[in-house]
Amino acid sequence: MPKLVDHDQRRTEIGSAALGVIASEGLDRLTVRKIAAASGWSTGVLAHYARDKDDMIALAVETMAQRFVARLQAIDATEVRERLRALLRELLPLDDERRTEALAWLRLAPYDPQGAGSADAVRQGHRDLRRAVVRVLDELGTASDSSTLAAELVALADGLAIHHLIDPRGVPRTKLEAVLDARLSQI
Amino acid sequence: MPKLVDHDQRRTEIGSAALGVIASEGLDRLTVRKIAAASGWSTGVLAHYARDKDDMIALAVETMAQRFVARLQAIDATEVRERLRALLRELLPLDDERRTEALAWLRLAPYDPQGAGSADAVRQGHRDLRRAVVRVLDELGTASDSSTLAAELVALADGLAIHHLIDPRGVPRTKLEAVLDARLSQI
Repeated sequence: MPKLVDHDQRRTEIGSAALGVIASEGLDRLTVRKIAAASGWSTGVLAHYARDKDDMIALAVETMAQRFVARLQAIDATEVRERLRALLRELLPLDDERRTEALAWLRLAPYDPQGAGSADAVRQGHRDLRRAVVRVLDELGTASDSSTLAAELVALADGLAIHHLIDPRGVPRTKLEAVLDARLSQI
Repeated sequence: MPKLVDHDQRRTEIGSAALGVIASEGLDRLTVRKIAAASGWSTGVLAHYARDKDDMIALAVETMAQRFVARLQAIDATEVRERLRALLRELLPLDDERRTEALAWLRLAPYDPQGAGSADAVRQGHRDLRRAVVRVLDELGTASDSSTLAAELVALADGLAIHHLIDPRGVPRTKLEAVLDARLSQI
């Protein structure tokens, strides 16, 4: 009788390991061997989930998106303004999990396999995110152009994240929060 | 009699070539050979300007900073608000030169030789830029906290630049300009 295997669980473990390697070493040094070492799964098992670098990157992006969506769903703020703030804070590297994601995202951003900008999944993730922000802004009802404001707020959060990664002392975490809150107080 | 050589001119040519290679291929594929091919100078001449990858990266960052400063100095807007707008627009990939710089910057951002965030020159460039924006905001005199607002505006511009690079159709150049102008109209 074959062993029962939780494939979703494994995918997530392998995707998280890939995410960690991308964050710490970059796409060019991403190998099946390194993911095997980081995840504890053999290269034989890994072959069922990712055959080449593109597969590994896709798995990492999928895992990042799942983690992000799970955190968004866990936001229990009933107040619209508080929900908007919580949503945007999920983009900031305010703890180790979000720091790993921000760093991996930064390294994935210039990855352009089809010459259409970034990888499909990264591009799609951004569009989904802007739409989510538009919905919250429409609920809030104070913005005259929620599409433009959503593009602004997501760009601000991503820009702040990168500035912190580039210069953690010049732009500390408290500064990220202060800048975001100052902007949100005007909306 | 030795030939007269314009070393500054050569440095700039080699730095621009390095910048182009970083933008199009990334740090991992940056080699003296590729810079030689892109600049037209022999690897023998290149050896006087850059011995290893760190030297090439430093030269590229130096050239990017010089180009940026030259463009800032060329801004002839006497009106403070117009100067602020022009300064921030220099960060947006609105033409090929700025697109190359934004893409190279994006690839340089996670480059962390000393473990202190990004490369010194990239980090220092950001600090100088925020200070320049603070000075213009102080001149404008409408911000209650020009340091926080400067951090916000530079992060917004960099975030917008990246969103365009990731998804040029979803976030076209006209959108970058519209978002920036909408934000500036509130200051």
